[in-house]
Amino acid sequence: MTTTAEPAKQIQTFYEPVLPYLGEVKARLSAIVPPDSQLLAESLHHSLSGGGKLLRPVVGLLAGGATGTLTPHHFETAAVSEMIHIATLLHDDVLDDADLRRGRKTVRAVWGNTVSILSGDYLLAQASRKLAQVGNIRIVAIFSDVLADLCDGEVEQIRGSYNVDVIDWDSYYRKSVCKTASLFRAACESAGVLNGLPESQIQALATFGKNFGIAFQIVDDLLDYTSSESEMGKPVLDDLRNGIVNAPILLALQSDELSDDERESFRVHIRRLFASEEGDDVAQPIAGIQGYLEKTGAVAETQALADRFIRDGLAGLDFMPPSAERDALFGLGRFVIQRRT
Amino acid sequence: MTTTAEPAKQIQTFYEPVLPYLGEVKARLSAIVPPDSQLLAESLHHSLSGGGKLLRPVVGLLAGGATGTLTPHHFETAAVSEMIHIATLLHDDVLDDADLRRGRKTVRAVWGNTVSILSGDYLLAQASRKLAQVGNIRIVAIFSDVLADLCDGEVEQIRGSYNVDVIDWDSYYRKSVCKTASLFRAACESAGVLNGLPESQIQALATFGKNFGIAFQIVDDLLDYTSSESEMGKPVLDDLRNGIVNAPILLALQSDELSDDERESFRVHIRRLFASEEGDDVAQPIAGIQGYLEKTGAVAETQALADRFIRDGLAGLDFMPPSAERDALFGLGRFVIQRRT
Repeated sequence: MTTTAEPAKQIQTFYEPVLPYLGEVKARLSAIVPPDSQLLAESLHHSLSGGGKLLRPVVGLLAGGATGTLTPHHFETAAVSEMIHIATLLHDDVLDDADLRRGRKTVRAVWGNTVSILSGDYLLAQASRKLAQVGNIRIVAIFSDVLADLCDGEVEQIRGSYNVDVIDWDSYYRKSVCKTASLFRAACESAGVLNGLPESQIQALATFGKNFGIAFQIVDDLLDYTSSESEMGKPVLDDLRNGIVNAPILLALQSDELSDDERESFRVHIRRLFASEEGDDVAQPIAGIQGYLEKTGAVAETQALADRFIRDGLAGLDFMPPSAERDALFGLGRFVIQRRT
Repeated sequence: MTTTAEPAKQIQTFYEPVLPYLGEVKARLSAIVPPDSQLLAESLHHSLSGGGKLLRPVVGLLAGGATGTLTPHHFETAAVSEMIHIATLLHDDVLDDADLRRGRKTVRAVWGNTVSILSGDYLLAQASRKLAQVGNIRIVAIFSDVLADLCDGEVEQIRGSYNVDVIDWDSYYRKSVCKTASLFRAACESAGVLNGLPESQIQALATFGKNFGIAFQIVDDLLDYTSSESEMGKPVLDDLRNGIVNAPILLALQSDELSDDERESFRVHIRRLFASEEGDDVAQPIAGIQGYLEKTGAVAETQALADRFIRDGLAGLDFMPPSAERDALFGLGRFVIQRRT
């Protein structure tokens, strides 16, 4: 597989085979807004109409469509994956005191922490209801594991935040699997379960979903460094400014290109950034960190790592018969590691 | 049924028939503490060892034991009811900025809001896992409904808080059913489902559980007024000080004993209490409110209301054959409406 020859596209190009079904998912998402609480109705409308890419439902629908016939159970399950994703954002924004997400005001910034927590809880409750309606206990178990993973991931992130001496690749991997990859895995795995696939194929779908999620997170980390503020709606090295040591930083810290003295100087810059307060001039540590990222070739290394996860994930999907859904899933896999926003 | 002749007892008297099984439930609760996050482990230990009465598991086990043979599925489900209860407290304490609960520091007071939210999410995730392990889709659905109810109840409470003109009996009832009664109903209903009872008996158990929960809440409201600070660990009329119009206040506001002028004066006192800030002298509105509560006989009325819910709930359980569990369940029902703490 080569990823470099792929022309630049919009991510939505790959949604095409499942667009009608995605409408079914959106209808189910709209239908969950509670009619009798104005406050929650507003905040949920704000969350659900937030211009999210519905990536988890799409991946689940493509995986389902490539390995069987999509049914209302697939639509319900796809809706659940998006509901849990949004619930996580609503809770994370409270935990992180976040006022903006992709340039848009968060629910907590508009209506406060209480509404953000409650809206998240409400979505989790409705997701749980939907799963019960699907009526397949294995699907319930798959998404229960996601909920547990999401907590574990958040704990891992808190444990490593603002501490460059604690975070290592194991910790990063655990956090990314739990916080991002788990839900993609569940979307793919549950599609296989609903289609009644043999266990080995279900596991291949699960592995693809997990690897897709890890690669997605790694590229997100990369964009945190390579994208301009106008593209991402946040300053360069925003993760690090918020105490999060992400993939390019980790790879650079571990690079053989650095002498021990350089590695320690790199850490000192990071510690200074962590210790800075809002309004402080951080130009010097930022420049220092950027210098080490360039010296170590961290961008190319990070990109290669994302490529490897996608390649390994797709390698397991050779059992899929030719179909538009299969092509779109493969194309989407290659696209997410090349995206620029 | 007469409740007044019953001698004063400890609530634990009624736990006797299910004590060995309660040990099974406790073991399951202890086993969920995650070993690899010190922070969550500490906060969960604090929450689970909080001297809670384990009333939801006990009611569920008594209902199960009175209508069949208790199995590990009953223990798991009983543990789930307590886990969801504690998760709710952990989230509610954040929503209410609560530092104390029954005289004990809350998790948010000790470790902060983030840990309190995450610990609640963690318990909900583990509860969801346990339900999947029980493997009965109806049980999953019953507890999913509880999660949705809990959100609805919290929303209803927020809607009516610090607003004596919004709250009415419908609103109070909806809030109490959702926030308190739903989990007791689920504990009883799921016991009936696990025992494979006929639908009418499952529904009778569900109704008993719901009525038990409402009565429990009503008596809680009463104790907020009649108990001394040393007994409850909080000042008299604490609910009202926190903006919550509870059962005795509602009944007094609706009483025929009051003239229109008195009713308005009563409301003025409540509004003044609502408008007061911490540290303000509220002796005058408190005395005014207490005067109206006495004049309207609100204590006796509230007590009678709780009695009626328990009586109606127990009336549906006449299908139960004689057993120690049945006697304890009936005794517990009568006890909770007479308790003094």
